[in-house]
Amino acid sequence: MGGDRGPRAVLAGMNKVAKKFPNSQFIIHGDKAAIAPPLQRYKLLRQRCQIKHTDQVVSMDAKPSQIIRNGRDSSMWKTIESLKEGFSTVAVSCGNTGALVATSLFNLKKSPGVSRPAIACLCPSSNPAGYNVLLDAGADIRANKDDLLCFSILGNQFAKYGLSINNPRVGILNVGTESHKGRPEIKAAYDLVNQIQENYGFEFVGFVEGTDIFSSAVDVIVTDGFTGNTAIKSSEGAALVIRKNLREAFQYTPFSRIGGFFAYTSLRRFFKKIDPRQSNGGVLLGLEGVVIKSHGGSDPVGIAAAITLGLKLANSKNLC
Amino acid sequence: MGGDRGPRAVLAGMNKVAKKFPNSQFIIHGDKAAIAPPLQRYKLLRQRCQIKHTDQVVSMDAKPSQIIRNGRDSSMWKTIESLKEGFSTVAVSCGNTGALVATSLFNLKKSPGVSRPAIACLCPSSNPAGYNVLLDAGADIRANKDDLLCFSILGNQFAKYGLSINNPRVGILNVGTESHKGRPEIKAAYDLVNQIQENYGFEFVGFVEGTDIFSSAVDVIVTDGFTGNTAIKSSEGAALVIRKNLREAFQYTPFSRIGGFFAYTSLRRFFKKIDPRQSNGGVLLGLEGVVIKSHGGSDPVGIAAAITLGLKLANSKNLC
Repeated sequence: MGGDRGPRAVLAGMNKVAKKFPNSQFIIHGDKAAIAPPLQRYKLLRQRCQIKHTDQVVSMDAKPSQIIRNGRDSSMWKTIESLKEGFSTVAVSCGNTGALVATSLFNLKKSPGVSRPAIACLCPSSNPAGYNVLLDAGADIRANKDDLLCFSILGNQFAKYGLSINNPRVGILNVGTESHKGRPEIKAAYDLVNQIQENYGFEFVGFVEGTDIFSSAVDVIVTDGFTGNTAIKSSEGAALVIRKNLREAFQYTPFSRIGGFFAYTSLRRFFKKIDPRQSNGGVLLGLEGVVIKSHGGSDPVGIAAAITLGLKLANSKNLC
Repeated sequence: MGGDRGPRAVLAGMNKVAKKFPNSQFIIHGDKAAIAPPLQRYKLLRQRCQIKHTDQVVSMDAKPSQIIRNGRDSSMWKTIESLKEGFSTVAVSCGNTGALVATSLFNLKKSPGVSRPAIACLCPSSNPAGYNVLLDAGADIRANKDDLLCFSILGNQFAKYGLSINNPRVGILNVGTESHKGRPEIKAAYDLVNQIQENYGFEFVGFVEGTDIFSSAVDVIVTDGFTGNTAIKSSEGAALVIRKNLREAFQYTPFSRIGGFFAYTSLRRFFKKIDPRQSNGGVLLGLEGVVIKSHGGSDPVGIAAAITLGLKLANSKNLC
């Protein structure tokens, strides 16, 4: 219920997944009156899903504390409760991030040793796995040295079991690679992460910069949720501007239109590769259960990507 | 002396500017033995520049405090000193950012009312001015509510007098647009900036997100130097990956190579438009003097862009 485009976009995304994964099954928590009519369009999905009616919806501007106090009948709460009680193996939401984190924290146990859960995002890179992992992408707006240490361990596990990277290279995001740079908690985390790398089976590459988020020099980028969220969204903003300019470039002259015609298939592949919708879906790490946060503004393609990510991770019990 | 590519790249960049701006004159502070021989290549530049020899160079890993104590004979110090004493109207450096800020702060007066200077960066956007202004891009790693207020005023002035934008739209960078989100200092700054917008002749649009940095919904984006630096560098990282993928797309099949041939001119224009080198150069705002920070890794194209920015701003006395 929480996506900016409403239940219709979510259903269309689910239908894409239902087609691709014949064994997938769905429980939809939300307003039956808003969900049942558009669901009629999707015959395949209809057969494999059930609707659990809830009256209440968490709004995008609701504070996390409000959900804990008054949101227990909401579709979001019921979704996480269903995961907790074992009715579902993955929970996916397009709703309010703060509320989703608070609801998950309240209902699901923290994994042993985890100080603060984090949202991990996949960033396209030229690494063999095709992606780098950035965390925290916005589960919280702060992180102290112990949280950053915890994120390095969570990110290492995610890279190993979610992306099959042996001996992942872990870096801490900073404004420069020199060891004297950055905020005090980052410098303290540097020493902590440096000490544990061998025990946990990863390689600590030290400080990395914003330009490294998509580079092949690192697999896991550790940062606080404020910085991580801004970094991800800034890159998306840049990608959008570039797409727009490129489309315009191919309309500019008759020659460029001919060029666009010949390069059509390759350009389509290219646009798909850089499409942020294809890497939609942040994974809430550090809890006993797979919770996926989809972008609020996601369309069916993005929603399908987020659900698919959840399906792939559902069997990796080492992950969360 | 401080650029990653050494004095040769700087000289080549200066030469580009010398050709384009017939009235430009240059003072080069640095090691004469390293500068004079390559300068021989550039006849035009040679006639319009003088070398002021210094033995000492500020290294990229030097701490700002070291420069204040022991760096007074360095090329960086002498460059700022020359600006202070009126021998030059603009100072440009590719060197250590922290040292440049510290040297500038020590030598140049703060503008009245400025709590903390900030580096302003130009981000390509579809606004009529062609750019948005983001500050702080890394003069410091922190900013409290009063600093963010100060940045909004500095950014407003820069947009007005540097980019000729009437009534600029100013936003504060946050993880969401809802007013309850974000760190305490950001929420406090929201109220402060909201109160002064009319007096200072700008429109406060509230919180903006990373995706807005390149959007036409805002002209000035205010944030702390840690977040700003990461946002800029992340976008550059994304742009680099996209460029690489696009070039590969045009090599993929014979058809796409034909497409690339026909679209060559439009693609060249496109690549120029999204080239981060073209918007290289951060302006240190809040001091009595125009100091430009160029990327350390800049090539001649980037260095020429940074110097050109300085030249354009040199006559805007309202700016700094």
